[in-house]
Amino acid sequence: MDYVQKQKLTDSPVNLYAPVNYLMELEGKRIRPIACLIVANIYTEDIQKALPVVYSIEMFHNFTLMHDDIMDNADMRRSKPSVHVKYDVNTAILSGDLMMIMSYKHILECCDDLILKNKLLKLFTNTAIEVCEGQQYDMDFENKKEVALSDYLLMIKLKTAVLLASTFKTGALIGGADDNDAIHFYDLGLNLGLAFQIQDDLLDTYGNQNTFGKKIGGDIIQNKKTYLYLKALELANDKEKNKLISLYNNNLLPEKEKIEKVKKIFKILDVKKHAEDLIEQLMEKAFDHYHALSVPEEKLKEVKNLMGYLLKRKI
Amino acid sequence: MDYVQKQKLTDSPVNLYAPVNYLMELEGKRIRPIACLIVANIYTEDIQKALPVVYSIEMFHNFTLMHDDIMDNADMRRSKPSVHVKYDVNTAILSGDLMMIMSYKHILECCDDLILKNKLLKLFTNTAIEVCEGQQYDMDFENKKEVALSDYLLMIKLKTAVLLASTFKTGALIGGADDNDAIHFYDLGLNLGLAFQIQDDLLDTYGNQNTFGKKIGGDIIQNKKTYLYLKALELANDKEKNKLISLYNNNLLPEKEKIEKVKKIFKILDVKKHAEDLIEQLMEKAFDHYHALSVPEEKLKEVKNLMGYLLKRKI
Repeated sequence: MDYVQKQKLTDSPVNLYAPVNYLMELEGKRIRPIACLIVANIYTEDIQKALPVVYSIEMFHNFTLMHDDIMDNADMRRSKPSVHVKYDVNTAILSGDLMMIMSYKHILECCDDLILKNKLLKLFTNTAIEVCEGQQYDMDFENKKEVALSDYLLMIKLKTAVLLASTFKTGALIGGADDNDAIHFYDLGLNLGLAFQIQDDLLDTYGNQNTFGKKIGGDIIQNKKTYLYLKALELANDKEKNKLISLYNNNLLPEKEKIEKVKKIFKILDVKKHAEDLIEQLMEKAFDHYHALSVPEEKLKEVKNLMGYLLKRKI
Repeated sequence: MDYVQKQKLTDSPVNLYAPVNYLMELEGKRIRPIACLIVANIYTEDIQKALPVVYSIEMFHNFTLMHDDIMDNADMRRSKPSVHVKYDVNTAILSGDLMMIMSYKHILECCDDLILKNKLLKLFTNTAIEVCEGQQYDMDFENKKEVALSDYLLMIKLKTAVLLASTFKTGALIGGADDNDAIHFYDLGLNLGLAFQIQDDLLDTYGNQNTFGKKIGGDIIQNKKTYLYLKALELANDKEKNKLISLYNNNLLPEKEKIEKVKKIFKILDVKKHAEDLIEQLMEKAFDHYHALSVPEEKLKEVKNLMGYLLKRKI
């Protein structure tokens, strides 16, 4: 991303701006910038004006990472020390605050079309509020004994999916799409985001260590309330339920044994199949919105590729 | 503030919204809301539309308090436990983030005048960035051996004065003032904010415990690099300088003795007088801008009262 490089901040005070540059320059997948530009490009050749907004979304995403890593006690980010580890917690708080504000600054400087800008800012603001709500639910769930599956789905919707939805819609609005297409792109992104997140849960337990990147079984070891775990609890009889809960409460069991025993219950209850079915349903919905767009399908090739790319990581 | 009461958030998740309500309801002086409304009211009778923006500024101010209290390890706020003490650090980080975003939401909902809104958002965003820079300088100074007086003045300008300046200007813009008046109100607020902050340093050492509210001599005990201390270092000969630095590095000395000894050096160097002179100069500048406003002076009575009120706390 050339634009990201060019935006490198050199301002004073350096202790405020250096951590922003550090995090923004770590190799990320840049899914959101790519998605936004692809969608904008469907409606316009002139995607220059999308760049500040694209940058704003990426900066907002990195702001959430910077603060979430403090809250989640996550020491590593993209195989490098998190900002609060490399610098300190205060730095990560304040530089994160700055990034949040800078993401508004970039939208404000995107163009002279005040009606468009007002739309983008309202969408961005509502999304940002939802992302905070999602992070709070996620933290709340850690301390809760029972979490309903519907609450879990609400949480991942808010924490992850709405930003992807909003990114697609932003691209459409900047490109000049009509409101109808903009809404379809939002819903496409929302369902895609949900599918992506549930697939992430699936891969954590059933994935291939080499292609997944993270340690397989990590969620089980950390007693994470994932889709698989919560679906299992929903389907289980009393005996299986108690067994699963006591396995999750048991941190003395050797890791390998714990993973095997939890997976055995998952297998009995067929939760892997349930997750796969849900992902399929969500992708079907995403494609319903894809097909409802007003543009001819040959213009949507890149969107289809991106959807495939995001879900391509096979088990 | 009725509007503040009415805005009480009841949304879920409660762990995210309750801390916002907690902090917003603690008795504050509400200087900024009052200033903004007074200025808007000079130019218009209809100050209803100013309320969302006024609320936004107060929320932003409280966001900075919530995060600053974590960074500064301040356990109390307005005689009550700070948010990170009453709840926890993670809560204060995330609810603070939410407040930052909510302050944008309120501006975005203020009115249908997109040109005005764009102006307000740009002013707000630039101010917010400066406030972050000010907080960073403040934290940097704690670990620095030598701080130039000019750097200190830059810090208090960014950390405190620009928000007051921006508040005055915002009131003017909402009221419908021309650009000239809006700029004069900005500069009036800036000089007033600086004067207020230096007076705060002065009162901390020379104030009256009953009217000041904080413990007199607190800055000296905490080795704070205030205007008095930095001006003293600037004026001191080598011997006085070494003595002052060694007093500031001495945390074993009984509090009363330390305060007396530092004040003795301040007296020799006449720094109290220097501070008083600077406050007077700043207030003169503030009044230059006051007199340059295009409105007749009888409409500025409330502004004059507010300026007097902010500086009234006598030594």
